Amino acid sequence: MKLYGYWRSTAAYRVRIALHLKEIPFESVSVHLVNNGGEQHHEHYAAINPNELVPCLIDGDLTLNQSLAIIDYIDNQYPNVALYPQEIKQKAQVQALSLDIASEIHPLNNLRVQQYLSQELAVSDEAKSAWVEHWMNIGFKAIENKIASTSGLYCFADEVTVADICLVAQVYNAHRFKVDMTDFPTINKVVENCNRLPAFIKAKPENQSDAVK
Amino acid sequence: MKLYGYWRSTAAYRVRIALHLKEIPFESVSVHLVNNGGEQHHEHYAAINPNELVPCLIDGDLTLNQSLAIIDYIDNQYPNVALYPQEIKQKAQVQALSLDIASEIHPLNNLRVQQYLSQELAVSDEAKSAWVEHWMNIGFKAIENKIASTSGLYCFADEVTVADICLVAQVYNAHRFKVDMTDFPTINKVVENCNRLPAFIKAKPENQSDAVK
Repeated sequence: MKLYGYWRSTAAYRVRIALHLKEIPFESVSVHLVNNGGEQHHEHYAAINPNELVPCLIDGDLTLNQSLAIIDYIDNQYPNVALYPQEIKQKAQVQALSLDIASEIHPLNNLRVQQYLSQELAVSDEAKSAWVEHWMNIGFKAIENKIASTSGLYCFADEVTVADICLVAQVYNAHRFKVDMTDFPTINKVVENCNRLPAFIKAKPENQSDAVK
Repeated sequence: MKLYGYWRSTAAYRVRIALHLKEIPFESVSVHLVNNGGEQHHEHYAAINPNELVPCLIDGDLTLNQSLAIIDYIDNQYPNVALYPQEIKQKAQVQALSLDIASEIHPLNNLRVQQYLSQELAVSDEAKSAWVEHWMNIGFKAIENKIASTSGLYCFADEVTVADICLVAQVYNAHRFKVDMTDFPTINKVVENCNRLPAFIKAKPENQSDAVK
């Protein structure tokens, strides 16, 4: 398997965690999101992923984008370590929490949106930080509320699920943008517990070969 | 089943299509997203869905948000009409296309974002229209590119999938915001074909009891 990603991409980070949890070997190909006008927009990469975003997974004849689709694909192909509960209602709750992050928090704060805010709308750096903080706060508040009653070691009792994968990557991003996390004790507890696991450590942005220190 | 929604919510529209495709009877509860400061923010609804967004499904003891999680739940509980291909790689492609819409296009254009742009960032109506058009165009361009080689009657050959559900709701939204769709002939063809099916007709915003004509 070949994973096109970038060390600091939240969505690529999610996929790395899943691959490491399942102990699937993969080749990482770095797509630099900033240098040279953003390599994700170069012809070569746009032909692989017309969305011009990372991550993208190549597995034989399959070219697959969207981190949650990639993770589900991996989960179906390699059921050695389950990333969702088996029970239908529990699985649905895990999916909903993952989407609370992947469809509500992350899309509003990623690079292309921040670029549009500054370049097209001339939004100041201060107002851009407020934007990032606003959407993260709203999202984390809802998640804190949800997992206060479901969490054990992780978001849902004591098994790692896709919800934890999404949460850890999003909280990394929150720290990067200096979002105050003091109001979210359950989230912080879960993230700490995840970050003790080898798969989560291996997947960390700073542990990737394209990381800039 | 009880579905909290709103006639013009793109995400609620997706769930209605899925329920009608499976011929599952459900009770619709309207949450007016604009009146009274937005009923989704009222205490009663926030207790049901702390994200303060529609849709939200109640099924017995299950309270579930996020349209794609709800659709997958319905699909697992009522396998009478499949909404995904069985084959793992094909399923993954359907998921990726659904997420191209649900995680890339829709979150940037929904009501709360438009409200933030005008209220917090004093963005003009013209610049707000350009914002909506920008994200829809980027997203539709990638989708047109993808489905040009996979479509038959629908996004993937001749079976209706979740990708079609997401596409129809998103294109409804595009028309509402007067986005020029002439560059997307495959998308237009698929949407037209879907909109001939009874389930898609029943689910249309204008056919809901809370629709404002």
